[in-house]
Amino acid sequence: MKVTVLGSSSALPTSERYPSAHVLNAHERLFLIDCGEGTQMQLRRNRIRFGKINHIFISHLHGDHVFGLYGLLSTFSLMGRVAPVYLYAPESFQGMFASHLADFDIHLNYEIVFIPLSGKDPVNILDDKYITVTSFPLQHRVPAFGFLFAEKPLDRNIIKESIERYEIPTVRIPAIKKGEDFVTMDGVLIKNDDLTVPGPAPLSYAYCSDTKYFKRLSSFVKGVDLLYHEATFDMSLEDLAKTTGHSTTIDAAKVASEAGAGSLMIGHFSARYKDVMPLVEEARKIFPKTFAAIDGHSYEVGSYADS
Amino acid sequence: MKVTVLGSSSALPTSERYPSAHVLNAHERLFLIDCGEGTQMQLRRNRIRFGKINHIFISHLHGDHVFGLYGLLSTFSLMGRVAPVYLYAPESFQGMFASHLADFDIHLNYEIVFIPLSGKDPVNILDDKYITVTSFPLQHRVPAFGFLFAEKPLDRNIIKESIERYEIPTVRIPAIKKGEDFVTMDGVLIKNDDLTVPGPAPLSYAYCSDTKYFKRLSSFVKGVDLLYHEATFDMSLEDLAKTTGHSTTIDAAKVASEAGAGSLMIGHFSARYKDVMPLVEEARKIFPKTFAAIDGHSYEVGSYADS
Repeated sequence: MKVTVLGSSSALPTSERYPSAHVLNAHERLFLIDCGEGTQMQLRRNRIRFGKINHIFISHLHGDHVFGLYGLLSTFSLMGRVAPVYLYAPESFQGMFASHLADFDIHLNYEIVFIPLSGKDPVNILDDKYITVTSFPLQHRVPAFGFLFAEKPLDRNIIKESIERYEIPTVRIPAIKKGEDFVTMDGVLIKNDDLTVPGPAPLSYAYCSDTKYFKRLSSFVKGVDLLYHEATFDMSLEDLAKTTGHSTTIDAAKVASEAGAGSLMIGHFSARYKDVMPLVEEARKIFPKTFAAIDGHSYEVGSYADS
Repeated sequence: MKVTVLGSSSALPTSERYPSAHVLNAHERLFLIDCGEGTQMQLRRNRIRFGKINHIFISHLHGDHVFGLYGLLSTFSLMGRVAPVYLYAPESFQGMFASHLADFDIHLNYEIVFIPLSGKDPVNILDDKYITVTSFPLQHRVPAFGFLFAEKPLDRNIIKESIERYEIPTVRIPAIKKGEDFVTMDGVLIKNDDLTVPGPAPLSYAYCSDTKYFKRLSSFVKGVDLLYHEATFDMSLEDLAKTTGHSTTIDAAKVASEAGAGSLMIGHFSARYKDVMPLVEEARKIFPKTFAAIDGHSYEVGSYADS
């Protein structure tokens, strides 16, 4: 699992930072999370293939998270896309979406499958071969949702010597990798534990933006390997964070700490910060494995590189 | 008068070309013409001051000409703007504009003065101290309008020697520059022609995008110094141009030629062209003073530099 940051600014983009958009690559499936203005240019700049994006997740209906969507969907169409796009967004978007397309004379030659986000509890919104995606409510000025992308348990690794020793036919190996026991030609039961070792631990990535701090949030992302959490402001602007429904560095670090996250990426920085290292330093006092999102950088989920 | 190109692509932006947007600087007033996705980033990249933009002209309601507008207007607001923005756009935009603001929870802390564009004839839509702006209908798949920005006649230049010779008081000079005659202390009438020489010729710039070729268009931009005309396709794609309501290089050159334009800038290039010089060469066969729009470049109106 690898996350590429396409935009790490808050509402006011800078020359270094575009508005919010992340691309998660999980087993060569690409998941686009938020789609701020300029996302399609950033995708192109980072040589990410448009055709591999089948799922788009919109956290909430503020412009800096959604103004790149219509341009991207139009571009998909102009590029000849026929595969449907699965669009996960707050439920109120469904009605306005169709009228926006009509307003701007947009005719898509593929289907949009709309999955509405709502409610006060986590909901499983996607379940494919490799991962599950759960949405959960955030607390912002408008309805907002976070997303947890979790790999399914991966196959166990077979112990090579056991294949020869027990004369395991090749056709049986996939099932054994999934945990089955094996009975030899002599009728002896060999327990799976003697045939395999655990595969790599499944990884997870969570996206929390925009939100103010609230206690329950950490329970939605318990044990996540990489937590992306907005930190629009430094701790001195706690009041501003509260009135605007945003988080400070400390809020983000608290959520990471309470969730027992592997590492914390902060972003959605206010344009007032030319240098965000002081924000990282603040967060590290509470949660040491913190780093700052940088446009155009990719991060391996599960490996923390002090940056 | 100077035009800066912020975007020269057609609907599908490339890594080199953003969607349509031009900024005209006329006497340090900035006029933004079209506002494709990423316009605010391009303004920033080109160090153009947001606060100097008071008038925004939208040619038509296709995304590649308008998807940057909401982001830009939001950014104006976040930057503390209080001065009104004059927004010139096809009349149908007025109704949808308010609902789009509401849909995306946008609260602007300044006024938008909406000037609807409609009709089949040129209309004077702006008249300030230095320039007049005229809108005129184009022919595209949706209602579309071009814009002609014309400097008002500039003051005549006073002949310095005449000030001494006729003992002209300083307070009379502004009126003489505007064409008044002067009566000396001895009661002798001195004709303005003996006191002044013509000032620099007033310049004009026209923006025509998107449109197919039609005969009457050249009459709307007669004698313009710099004509920007879309040339989405090369001449071999004439049929595609017709069905999509766009122009070829030849169409653009014909309009420039029929209008007696000073020079022709072509742009709104289809993403299929990595190199647009062949398009320029095609147009030059009909209208030699043709050049290609390049993102981030500025062009002085009235001076043609072969590029």
